[in-house]
Amino acid sequence: MLDTIIIGAGPAGMAAGIYAARAELSHLVVESGLMSGGQIVNTSEVDNYPGLMGIGGFDLAMKFREHCDRCGVQFRSAAVTEVKQEEGGFLVSLEGGETHLAKTVLFATGARHRKLEIPGEAEYTGSGVSYCATCDGAFFKGKEVAVIGGGDVAVEDALFLARGCKKVYLVHRREEFRAAKTLVSRLRACENVELVLNAVPVRIDGNGQVEALLVKGADGEQKLLVAGVFIAVGMIPDTGLLKNLVTLDAAGYVVAGEDCRTSLPGIFAAGDMRTKPLRQVITAAADGATAIREIEVFLHQL
Amino acid sequence: MLDTIIIGAGPAGMAAGIYAARAELSHLVVESGLMSGGQIVNTSEVDNYPGLMGIGGFDLAMKFREHCDRCGVQFRSAAVTEVKQEEGGFLVSLEGGETHLAKTVLFATGARHRKLEIPGEAEYTGSGVSYCATCDGAFFKGKEVAVIGGGDVAVEDALFLARGCKKVYLVHRREEFRAAKTLVSRLRACENVELVLNAVPVRIDGNGQVEALLVKGADGEQKLLVAGVFIAVGMIPDTGLLKNLVTLDAAGYVVAGEDCRTSLPGIFAAGDMRTKPLRQVITAAADGATAIREIEVFLHQL
Repeated sequence: MLDTIIIGAGPAGMAAGIYAARAELSHLVVESGLMSGGQIVNTSEVDNYPGLMGIGGFDLAMKFREHCDRCGVQFRSAAVTEVKQEEGGFLVSLEGGETHLAKTVLFATGARHRKLEIPGEAEYTGSGVSYCATCDGAFFKGKEVAVIGGGDVAVEDALFLARGCKKVYLVHRREEFRAAKTLVSRLRACENVELVLNAVPVRIDGNGQVEALLVKGADGEQKLLVAGVFIAVGMIPDTGLLKNLVTLDAAGYVVAGEDCRTSLPGIFAAGDMRTKPLRQVITAAADGATAIREIEVFLHQL
Repeated sequence: MLDTIIIGAGPAGMAAGIYAARAELSHLVVESGLMSGGQIVNTSEVDNYPGLMGIGGFDLAMKFREHCDRCGVQFRSAAVTEVKQEEGGFLVSLEGGETHLAKTVLFATGARHRKLEIPGEAEYTGSGVSYCATCDGAFFKGKEVAVIGGGDVAVEDALFLARGCKKVYLVHRREEFRAAKTLVSRLRACENVELVLNAVPVRIDGNGQVEALLVKGADGEQKLLVAGVFIAVGMIPDTGLLKNLVTLDAAGYVVAGEDCRTSLPGIFAAGDMRTKPLRQVITAAADGATAIREIEVFLHQL
């Protein structure tokens, strides 16, 4: 019976691992991805993790992982298939049938990309449709592309793509951006970026590869002749395993305050997957630390 | 009229500066110390800021400051003498008479060392009495010293001093330690550390310099012949300027949740000075980021 099983190895899960190892808790960090880091692995640059300005997302992930390894954090690579309550704790089942018992479980599974759910999106994913400009942008050098969304990620993607692409359309359903002002100012200064505002994407057309994005605005439909469509319309929290265990909000986030305690004693949630005011690397890492502190308090009371 | 004035330049204040500059908020970070960094400046090593394992406290402070400078964070070195509500915002008065107006004020003033309040303490401060083992420990090389307290800092101080001192007494009023188990295990393994438990310090004696610490336990009084007394009995939040503005708890911390909003709209509190489950560099920095996000939301609603 372990003290805690941490599910997820992004900034929240790895920070939790560091704090768990330093607190001498028996633990296991279960990661489902091929490598540690979560979303930041696919981020070209993380500029706002205080103390490590302008570091690549991959490099930041590696710094967290190195910190874990030096502290003796225990990792296990496998997808979690089920978490259920057992006498005195929780049974965590992994892909392949392996199971582990723990007194507490800390979920740090983060969030994943939201889909547009329009015709052509699924068909052309990997053939011109992408959810990660920093991963796939290089394939569209010199071509015309569209970015969908109005938040930080969409604007950052557009700025990133504008460096290498001939033209970038930024399609956003509103007039105003949710993105940080500094980003929007930089975007408006880009000569090869065209804002397509108050418009929604309707269909992605192509012939083996993406050839056009159909958008609908106040003045009717418009066909953007693009080779790539980058979708950045937000995230969905990875909380499927928790559906029948703890209270989720309408958007699927685990209802948990800064103490990371959920509606079920013994189950904790840290990082992007919980209800919180700001989802950033720094706030996810802080959650990991705080969650372990709360788990220590919880274990003392058992 | 600035968007925000950030008071304090520790991890919370500097993280807030980084986020404020990136959000293009007009701002000023007012720091009262001689250098940025807050408490970490006097910490020999910070081992649990994820991604920067085993970095010196001073170096971590410099990395935060460098990050601020590259983002264009505006600093002003001066003590704040008063913050009061004015039409449309707040008037912040600095030592020397300078004043600044801002729509919001973010307090990130941290906390300072709690005193024992026993005879000899004030008299011998700087002459054998210290609140910072990592700052002053080197002066006691080869000598006998006492550390007072039972938390992480006290145990860390004892471990640090044991490396250079002939003998270290750790005086703690209880049998059990609040400190992390890993630290206590390491402490118990130190041959030149003697635990003086269930004992309280009564008086510090000396002759120009500290010569002894008198402690009182269950079996009566005991005189420890020491040249140094390191006091690590906790922190007091620096919330004096806020006494008549916002709600404080019994210990003097600003009552504020993870959104850093206080009882007075427009006044925010980040880092060690607010009510929170865990006070660490990582959670203070997260507060700075979240507070600026909340300030942006607040400003949009003005």
